[in-house]
Amino acid sequence: MKRLADTQVAIVGLGLMGGSLAGALRGQCRAVVGVARRAETIETALALGLIDRGATDLTSGVRQADVVVLATPVRVILRQLAEIGPLLPEGCLLMDLGSTKAQIVAEMARLPEHVQPLGGHPMCGKEVAGLEAADPALYRGRTFILTPLERTSEAALGLGRALAQAVGACPLVLGPERQDHLVGVVSHLPYLLACALVATVDALTSADPAAWEVVAGSFRDASRVAASDVTMMLDILLTNREEVLKALDVYQTQLHDLVQLVEGGDEDEMRTILSTIRERRLEMFP
Amino acid sequence: MKRLADTQVAIVGLGLMGGSLAGALRGQCRAVVGVARRAETIETALALGLIDRGATDLTSGVRQADVVVLATPVRVILRQLAEIGPLLPEGCLLMDLGSTKAQIVAEMARLPEHVQPLGGHPMCGKEVAGLEAADPALYRGRTFILTPLERTSEAALGLGRALAQAVGACPLVLGPERQDHLVGVVSHLPYLLACALVATVDALTSADPAAWEVVAGSFRDASRVAASDVTMMLDILLTNREEVLKALDVYQTQLHDLVQLVEGGDEDEMRTILSTIRERRLEMFP
Repeated sequence: MKRLADTQVAIVGLGLMGGSLAGALRGQCRAVVGVARRAETIETALALGLIDRGATDLTSGVRQADVVVLATPVRVILRQLAEIGPLLPEGCLLMDLGSTKAQIVAEMARLPEHVQPLGGHPMCGKEVAGLEAADPALYRGRTFILTPLERTSEAALGLGRALAQAVGACPLVLGPERQDHLVGVVSHLPYLLACALVATVDALTSADPAAWEVVAGSFRDASRVAASDVTMMLDILLTNREEVLKALDVYQTQLHDLVQLVEGGDEDEMRTILSTIRERRLEMFP
Repeated sequence: MKRLADTQVAIVGLGLMGGSLAGALRGQCRAVVGVARRAETIETALALGLIDRGATDLTSGVRQADVVVLATPVRVILRQLAEIGPLLPEGCLLMDLGSTKAQIVAEMARLPEHVQPLGGHPMCGKEVAGLEAADPALYRGRTFILTPLERTSEAALGLGRALAQAVGACPLVLGPERQDHLVGVVSHLPYLLACALVATVDALTSADPAAWEVVAGSFRDASRVAASDVTMMLDILLTNREEVLKALDVYQTQLHDLVQLVEGGDEDEMRTILSTIRERRLEMFP
C-alpha cells in the first residue's frame, strides 16, 4: 500500500464534509479528485481551491484512485457501496464519512475482494450544509472514528489513520456497534432533544413578541443542532434507529425523575441530585 | 430622582452577577459600594477594581445609597426584601437581579412607601460562579428585563433603564408573570433538559472509556448549563415551579411525539416534521 503522499484520493460527494476533507488533503497527497453529479459543483470546488480536478461520473472519477472516500448521506453511501466495487482499481482503499457504521460495515463486507474497505466517521460538522460552507480546518483536533472490517489489512488501516491525521484529526478505532451506541447517545439523541425543545418553545412562546428579546444562551446552545441538514439526519435516524430509541427511552426516564423531583420540591433531595449532575458535567468537560 | 451619574449605587452580593455589574457601573455613577458578608470578598472586589468601597454590613452599606441592587440568589433576595426597607434612605431605588420575578415583585409590594422598588433580570450569566469570574462586559448586548410595580414612579423606572443601558444591556419592561413564563420556557426548562442529558450520557456511556473521545459538540453545547450554580438554580426552580412544570409537560409531549415518529419510521412524515422544526430554528436565529 502506498504512503498517503503518493496516493490519488477521490472524494465522492462535495458537500460540507467532502469539500472540507478535499481542501484539507490537497497538497498532502498526489492529487485530490472531486466527484459530484453536477458540473457546477466541480467548478465551485475548483474555484475554491479544494480539489485538483473533478469528475461528474463515478466511473471516471475513481478509475485511478488509490483511496476513495464516500462523503454522501448514509443511505446514499449504502447504495454507492452496492455498485462501486467493480469500478475500483486493485487494492484501492474505500472509506466513507457516514455517521452510522453498522449497516455501512455490513454492506462493505460484500465488496469484491480486490477492495480494502474501512468505515470512517469524523466527529465534526456544522449546521450550515453545502460546499460553500467547506472549511479545511473542520477536522482539526476532532476525533475521526475508524471501523475496520476483519478483511481490512493493517496497511489499509494504517493509510486510513494517516489520512485522518493529515487533516488534523485524531483517529480512534472502534467496532461498528460500539460506535453506533456511543454516537447514538452523544450525538443523535441530542439532535432529537434539540428538535423537541424548538417545538416546545415554538408552542409556548411564539404568540409573544417579547420571546425573542428574552431568548437565553441556554436555549440557543441547546437548540443549535435542530438546524442540521434534514436529509443527513434522516439517514442517521433510519440507520441507527434501535440505538436512538434506546437512548431516548433512558432520557425520558431521567427526565421523568427530574419532573418528579421538581414536583416534590424537597430541597435537600433537589440539591443532592442537581449537585451530582453538576459534578459529572464538570468531570466530563474539565 | 438623580441622574445615574450623580448616584451612589450599593450592590448587595458580590458574586459573578453583582461583581460584574459593579465593574460595569464603576465610573458611570458617583460611587459603587459593594456589600458582602466577608471582608475577604470586599478586599478581592477592591483589588479587582470592581468597586469604589465596600461594607460587610447591610446597614452601613446602603445608608447613603441612591440605588441599591440585590445581587443574591432569589430566596436570599426575598429574605433581604423583608428586612431592608427601614435601612434605605428616602426615595431610594431598590432593584434586584433575580431570575424569577412574581414572588420578588409580590414581596417588593410590601416595602415601606419611601422606597421605589423595581424588579430586574439581566439575561446573562456563566457556568463559572463567583467574584473571580466577574466580567464588566457580561451585560453587554444582553436583554435586561425590568418589572416595575404599580407604585414604581416613571422617574425610578427611568433610572433603572439608565442603569441597564450604562452596563451595555437593552432594557425590556415586562410584567412579572409574563417574564416568569417566558424565562421558564427559554431558560429554566433548558437547564433541566441539560441535567437529564448529562444523567443519560452518564448512565449509558460511563463504562466505556472511548465515550470521551467520541463526545460531540452537540452534547457539549446541550449540556453546558447543567454546570450552573446549584444554589442559584434551586432558588429559581422553587420560585418558578408552576411555569417550569408546565413547560416540562409540553416538552415531554413534544418528545413523545418525536419518539413515535422515529418508531414509526415513516420517511415522508419524518422529513416534513424535522424540516418544519429546522425552519423554525432558522427563523429564531437568522
